Amino acid sequence: MYPADLENLIESLQFFPGIGRKTAERMAFSVMNMSDERVELLASSIENVKKNIHLCSICNSFTDSKICNICSNELRDNTILCVVEDPRSVFLFESLGLFKGKYHVLKGLISPAMGINPEDIELEKLVDRVREVQPKEIILAFRPSIEGETTALYIKRIFSDLDIKISKIASGVPIGADMEYIDAMTLERALRDRKNVE
Amino acid sequence: MYPADLENLIESLQFFPGIGRKTAERMAFSVMNMSDERVELLASSIENVKKNIHLCSICNSFTDSKICNICSNELRDNTILCVVEDPRSVFLFESLGLFKGKYHVLKGLISPAMGINPEDIELEKLVDRVREVQPKEIILAFRPSIEGETTALYIKRIFSDLDIKISKIASGVPIGADMEYIDAMTLERALRDRKNVE
Repeated sequence: MYPADLENLIESLQFFPGIGRKTAERMAFSVMNMSDERVELLASSIENVKKNIHLCSICNSFTDSKICNICSNELRDNTILCVVEDPRSVFLFESLGLFKGKYHVLKGLISPAMGINPEDIELEKLVDRVREVQPKEIILAFRPSIEGETTALYIKRIFSDLDIKISKIASGVPIGADMEYIDAMTLERALRDRKNVE
Repeated sequence: MYPADLENLIESLQFFPGIGRKTAERMAFSVMNMSDERVELLASSIENVKKNIHLCSICNSFTDSKICNICSNELRDNTILCVVEDPRSVFLFESLGLFKGKYHVLKGLISPAMGINPEDIELEKLVDRVREVQPKEIILAFRPSIEGETTALYIKRIFSDLDIKISKIASGVPIGADMEYIDAMTLERALRDRKNVE
């Protein structure tokens, strides 16, 4: 048995997703080799995230204010809404600077196989927002998957009474990919969604 | 860019060995879903390990005292010393309860290929201890590897003037293993070190 303080840390670290006993041990041992400042920063960062970071009350992305700085930015286009499955997607899109509209973050995707229903991903919050804001277009930016398709079809149906264009990001062979490493589903989709060479 | 507190935590987590940006993000996000108590415990455990845990001044294993509870245990056999490459090995041996002597933890193994020399693994601390305590036997419990062999031969040579039995743990095919998954070096060793059926 490790000394109590060490054992406590090893057990605490296993509450992180994907961290098992062995990794937690290796991480705990490394704390001893970190500088005092590094350890202080690490411990306080954990506390600060818990204390200060939460979900934006409008779009569900991460923020340290009540409303995130995208939702509160008057310069961003309110008529186009990009719906994503995870806050990470917002920061990914933003880092690329490709999109100037607003975002809405679902809490995952509908998955009948996993028992994840529309209410589990807080779809009603999107519905309320769309009915209030009435954007011209909703872009669905989900990972290409059965769950992505299911969620897209569900959203399309919910808003069928409104005059909103509902689109989704293209899927197909990624730029620069080696053809032999592309899976069959992606190739099938790329073939079906083929475009005329202009 | 993530909110500052979140970004700080993501960067801090990457100081753990083997934790890259993506894993650090996933870990940082999970902090928001932990209970307040869990977060407090995690942060304080990190600080407590840094503050209270260090290496035993005799054997180099982890302890929260000056001398670990194995080194200070008068009931343990001082005449037999098990030398390991990592504090983890001490806790592994202890959890199995197979050994009643004392331990000595090196800071790794000699590796000419990696430029790791005897002084890098603090071999002189072992030398001083052995010359003082004069155990009857030293058991080398290193992982079977070139580095393990090199370190074993080096230790054997250092103590050649003393009347000490120097042994090493057996290597070979692990109990219960499927023969087809055993690597060639292990099989070669198992064949070479074959024993008479008694």
